[in-house]
Amino acid sequence: MNPAVLTPLLDWLDLAGVAIFALTGALVAAREKQTFVTMAFFALITGLGGGTMRDLFIGAPVFWIHDGWVAAVCLGIALLAWFTPTRWWEGRFLAIADGVGLTAYAVLGTAKALSYGVPPIPSFLMGVITGCVGGIVRDVIAGRPSILMRPELYVTAAALSASLTVLGELLTLERVVVWIVAALAGFALRLAAIGWQLSLPSYRE
Amino acid sequence: MNPAVLTPLLDWLDLAGVAIFALTGALVAAREKQTFVTMAFFALITGLGGGTMRDLFIGAPVFWIHDGWVAAVCLGIALLAWFTPTRWWEGRFLAIADGVGLTAYAVLGTAKALSYGVPPIPSFLMGVITGCVGGIVRDVIAGRPSILMRPELYVTAAALSASLTVLGELLTLERVVVWIVAALAGFALRLAAIGWQLSLPSYRE
Amino acid sequence: MNPAVLTPLLDWLDLAGVAIFALTGALVAAREKQTFVTMAFFALITGLGGGTMRDLFIGAPVFWIHDGWVAAVCLGIALLAWFTPTRWWEGRFLAIADGVGLTAYAVLGTAKALSYGVPPIPSFLMGVITGCVGGIVRDVIAGRPSILMRPELYVTAAALSASLTVLGELLTLERVVVWIVAALAGFALRLAAIGWQLSLPSYRE
Repeated sequence: MNPAVLTPLLDWLDLAGVAIFALTGALVAAREKQTFVTMAFFALITGLGGGTMRDLFIGAPVFWIHDGWVAAVCLGIALLAWFTPTRWWEGRFLAIADGVGLTAYAVLGTAKALSYGVPPIPSFLMGVITGCVGGIVRDVIAGRPSILMRPELYVTAAALSASLTVLGELLTLERVVVWIVAALAGFALRLAAIGWQLSLPSYRE
Repeated sequence: MNPAVLTPLLDWLDLAGVAIFALTGALVAAREKQTFVTMAFFALITGLGGGTMRDLFIGAPVFWIHDGWVAAVCLGIALLAWFTPTRWWEGRFLAIADGVGLTAYAVLGTAKALSYGVPPIPSFLMGVITGCVGGIVRDVIAGRPSILMRPELYVTAAALSASLTVLGELLTLERVVVWIVAALAGFALRLAAIGWQLSLPSYRE
Repeated sequence: MNPAVLTPLLDWLDLAGVAIFALTGALVAAREKQTFVTMAFFALITGLGGGTMRDLFIGAPVFWIHDGWVAAVCLGIALLAWFTPTRWWEGRFLAIADGVGLTAYAVLGTAKALSYGVPPIPSFLMGVITGCVGGIVRDVIAGRPSILMRPELYVTAAALSASLTVLGELLTLERVVVWIVAALAGFALRLAAIGWQLSLPSYRE
């Protein structure tokens, strides 16, 4: 695929990822019977948190600061969540959409770090951070047990996508193919985790 | 008003805002019967948190790093709180002072982002972040329910000040007038919220 | 000591500090019977958190982003913690190792800020942040009461090391001597605090 097609596709995926995460943030606020302002704050933190941290760490301009649309999408999602019943969004649909966001973000975050000349291990971590940090900050501020403290396969799915993206780069494979395979592999793992309640083993003495 | 008068005025307002927020941080530590070191940490986090996050996001040098006085003011406030009984500061006085800091900061934060060429919606958010983030981080670390999770009109007052500041800029009105009106409007809303216990409606199915 | 000897020594100390803090993070996850992924996340947050915040604040490139080894050390420590019983690491040994990391980091953080031209008070704060922030973030995410909320002499030891480092710089004393004295003084205070359960007085009306 050539860049003229690829770049708009990536931008669109990016905005879709922001929107999905923003929705999960707004729904946490809705479930806790919060106000619209709180809902908007959670939509922003969850939608933008991971990418913001990645950009600060790799020294890139923070992605939503010079593009007014990204934050507007989060606010629009908060409005949508405010005017719709939460049951529209609950259950499988949201978990699956969240899985798409998680793994797409892990791939995008890793690819962005690699393109800034960051070495393999930190690039891998940037992918995981981009996918997971928004949700972790959302849960800490809401006072909920974070996804990080549950044995569920979640961060692991992001880690799979991020590591395949790094591996593809090291083997100098065609980027678009690598990215699609990496996102699909992580997503398949996350789907399997949701479907069969897969979880990692816990630490034992 | 010409810049020769305006700039020192803004600097002074800025320091006053830091001091007020630092005091609210130190008092949280005092109420929890903490040590002086904890009190100083809370004064710093609360006084400097919002502006620090704004500066990192817009790519400005962090405001208190190259000016030794700002952090010194926070430490001085922690000393003051340590040697005075909390009842001196409790109640209406502090809530009102906090309202001044909140809305002044929302205006200053928005104006600084606009001056860095940030578009309207992110500039608006920078104003809200500058006003509110210090208090949110203070509450999360102290393990208290954050202002974000209460229906009280608080973030909303900052949002009003920030949005009026952006609106004035879009209409190219005289800046000083816009800033004063924006700060007063937010502050009046916050005062009304304190006086009549105004709160936003909560989410309902 | 000349720079040819000093610089590798500092680099080695830095990596040792990262490793010790990473271990304390991994052990928090182990005690809570978490998975390997969570353990790795905590090792990274605790090992890298303080230095990352310092670098963002002073405008330096984040230290572990362009050096792939630092993050690899954290992941290696997480593996080590996963495959060993926690009792190997519990008790005095870890508290003492943590004290070494805390005070060495306070000195290194202060020295790095001074070398970036940051004034005395903010440089002092950078030292304290480098030493303490990783542990604070670890505790907030794990939902544990933070070291910041306990009267124990901990942050104070970092503050002693950081202030002596600043003082030595202001008096233009020989840097290596200052750093060693500052680290030893903070460490001695921390050891005394562990041995005799020293704590700071709490706020009283």
